[in-house]
Amino acid sequence: MSIKHGEIIAIGDELISGRVLNTTSCFAADRLFNAGYAIKRITVIGDDPDDINECLLRAVDRSSFVIISGGLGPTSDDITNEVAAKALGRRLVRNEGIMKRLEECRASGRCPADFPMDKLAMLPEAAEELNPSGHAAGYYLRHNGVILFFLPGVPEQLREHLIRRVLPTLEKINGRQPGGLKKTFRIFGRSEIELNMLIAPIDRKYRDIKVGYYPNFPEVFVSLSMLEDRDGKAYFDSMCREVRALLAENITGEDDETLEKNIGRLLIRKKARLAVAESCTGGMMGRQITSVPGSSAWFEMGVVTYANNAKRKLLGVSEGTLAAHGAVSSETAAEMAEGVRKLAGSDYALSITGIAGPGGGSEQKPVGTVFIGMTTPEKTVAERFLFQGRREQIRTISVAAALDWLRRHLSFGSYIPGIKTAA
Amino acid sequence: MSIKHGEIIAIGDELISGRVLNTTSCFAADRLFNAGYAIKRITVIGDDPDDINECLLRAVDRSSFVIISGGLGPTSDDITNEVAAKALGRRLVRNEGIMKRLEECRASGRCPADFPMDKLAMLPEAAEELNPSGHAAGYYLRHNGVILFFLPGVPEQLREHLIRRVLPTLEKINGRQPGGLKKTFRIFGRSEIELNMLIAPIDRKYRDIKVGYYPNFPEVFVSLSMLEDRDGKAYFDSMCREVRALLAENITGEDDETLEKNIGRLLIRKKARLAVAESCTGGMMGRQITSVPGSSAWFEMGVVTYANNAKRKLLGVSEGTLAAHGAVSSETAAEMAEGVRKLAGSDYALSITGIAGPGGGSEQKPVGTVFIGMTTPEKTVAERFLFQGRREQIRTISVAAALDWLRRHLSFGSYIPGIKTAA
Repeated sequence: MSIKHGEIIAIGDELISGRVLNTTSCFAADRLFNAGYAIKRITVIGDDPDDINECLLRAVDRSSFVIISGGLGPTSDDITNEVAAKALGRRLVRNEGIMKRLEECRASGRCPADFPMDKLAMLPEAAEELNPSGHAAGYYLRHNGVILFFLPGVPEQLREHLIRRVLPTLEKINGRQPGGLKKTFRIFGRSEIELNMLIAPIDRKYRDIKVGYYPNFPEVFVSLSMLEDRDGKAYFDSMCREVRALLAENITGEDDETLEKNIGRLLIRKKARLAVAESCTGGMMGRQITSVPGSSAWFEMGVVTYANNAKRKLLGVSEGTLAAHGAVSSETAAEMAEGVRKLAGSDYALSITGIAGPGGGSEQKPVGTVFIGMTTPEKTVAERFLFQGRREQIRTISVAAALDWLRRHLSFGSYIPGIKTAA
Repeated sequence: MSIKHGEIIAIGDELISGRVLNTTSCFAADRLFNAGYAIKRITVIGDDPDDINECLLRAVDRSSFVIISGGLGPTSDDITNEVAAKALGRRLVRNEGIMKRLEECRASGRCPADFPMDKLAMLPEAAEELNPSGHAAGYYLRHNGVILFFLPGVPEQLREHLIRRVLPTLEKINGRQPGGLKKTFRIFGRSEIELNMLIAPIDRKYRDIKVGYYPNFPEVFVSLSMLEDRDGKAYFDSMCREVRALLAENITGEDDETLEKNIGRLLIRKKARLAVAESCTGGMMGRQITSVPGSSAWFEMGVVTYANNAKRKLLGVSEGTLAAHGAVSSETAAEMAEGVRKLAGSDYALSITGIAGPGGGSEQKPVGTVFIGMTTPEKTVAERFLFQGRREQIRTISVAAALDWLRRHLSFGSYIPGIKTAA
């Protein structure tokens, strides 16, 4: 069975004007790939009838399915139904199911009395609703053998439809696809080109597997993918094993395993708990840790001690240390880590103090100077780093450097950070 | 002078497979709009010679400038230079400036000895480097009167080139454009359709101004834009004033003023300081606050008291409260807010405690149940909310609800939250 190729047309002035980031097409492409479909093209256009018309007709000519998102809503800039009907030479037909639900909604007072019901209920002829019992818009139709899915542009609604309706509908029509094979290695502390050169010899051995290198700040993702499973899963797994052995301790996680999930797994295995003290990152490390459901099993406490006073009072950083070395120093980082470990009664602690900018830098400590402290049941260490970039980048890489340091320590017992320290 | 329309072609398998989110096209479109150019289309394709060829030729036919991003790097999947030269019928010519810099780089040991220098230095004939003294790739050329910019796909490099090279180059060639007029109102606690209906009468009065409604979770952005300044700035400002008066206290900020920046401005005006205590949001509120440079002027301290023990020890939440009402209760939220205010010695404090899921819900307190506490120099209040969605959404809207509550209080003295509380 041949692999089906599709494409996505995302409609909305907000997308081409740069006001809103197009996250939905990325989500759709990812889920479709995993289900064995490849997206060949994503076209983003405004709420413009001519552009919608042209893109739709060209897509129908070259793809086996097309996902059109956006412009189905009730507001005045939503014109997809009307334009699509015209492009495909179909009448607009009132969908009685939608009308009925909208009338119930209005009767219950949840919809305003002047809600534009007709706009939502008029669909191109032969359109089938994707979720006849739900409230979100979304339908599909077949045209010249091509399946067209019309989905709402609102990210949550699109995601819901894609997983619950689009993928099952494609499977019903095409049968189950062999499924794309995909493996992502998440790497921290190595550049794209370093990784490319390291992996090149393995890449040459596996001709049917595509290797990609994607900076995903502050990490680089190395991605292996193979759509047609001619050579089978064993062939794919063999390349994965070689890359895994090569990159070894540089891997922060694989596929959906993030650095913070990995740390959680390692701490649970040790029955140990973590606490963090943050200055310039202001809660970012705590947030990243607690993005993992169930992190309360291993995360005890975080403190954001932005002011010196808070560092002293809450963490017991000494007056003398602050006076002699300043709040941004390895001594302060070490005392912050020890202080929060003591306060929390945890086994491990991390601390970050630095100058994220744009202001606050000096010749001795320019913007980007960050000290990270780590305390373990054995000892406390602190290192100086110098990160490049703007405020949010410096904050982001600081958190990654701290968490990655702990991961390396938990996995390999080493006290050496995975990213270069400053002199 | 007529407005110039352009388009963007973003190249990369990582973009169409959904492994990497296309943030760069959004950034470019936004900056170009602000400089008076409109992007009509963004096409995302893979590292495929035929697709690159077709898209490039079509774009040259219909646009006055084209931005092509991605595929300029040294790794094996980078093929843009080669394919573009062929599509445009140009030879690949070695750029001596690039070669010289790469050789210096190699001599200094910063580039590996086997760095693929030729790949980076061979550009389509008549290409002019955008930054002849820098290291990042990027060039432009004119073809049949159309200006083509070839930019690296790495977000930081693209941003740098766009601002420092592309916009000045376009200005040199086209003269300064009149500049698009754009205004964004950020709204929390009102739905897209509610806003559409409220604004519709104003919208009808200003025919030349485009109104857009964009859910940007957890806010909705109402965007007014006008590219051709036929009717002038006074006309545009007049509509802005009407919308501003109508939405009033629902506006969390305008344009780049975020909710947290707004709070900072309000606190500085009152010479007051803030502290926060977070449970289920795990540092997210602190992170959002400290994303504002200079927030140390008004943000004192944050604590992430994930465990009950931490709530008791650090914040003085009473054993009795935890036993009688639980950690997720308005009593605990109030004691957390008062506790962190006392600990920090601040004027205001916010607290969040709730069930972000996916586990931990019960019949009385289902997933999404969140209590927010606010303490001011006058009194302490706490409210119960019930938010929908997955873990990260519940966390995100909780932080916004807390910060928005404080903003409303600081601006209007009210103790009523801007989003519906649960029964």
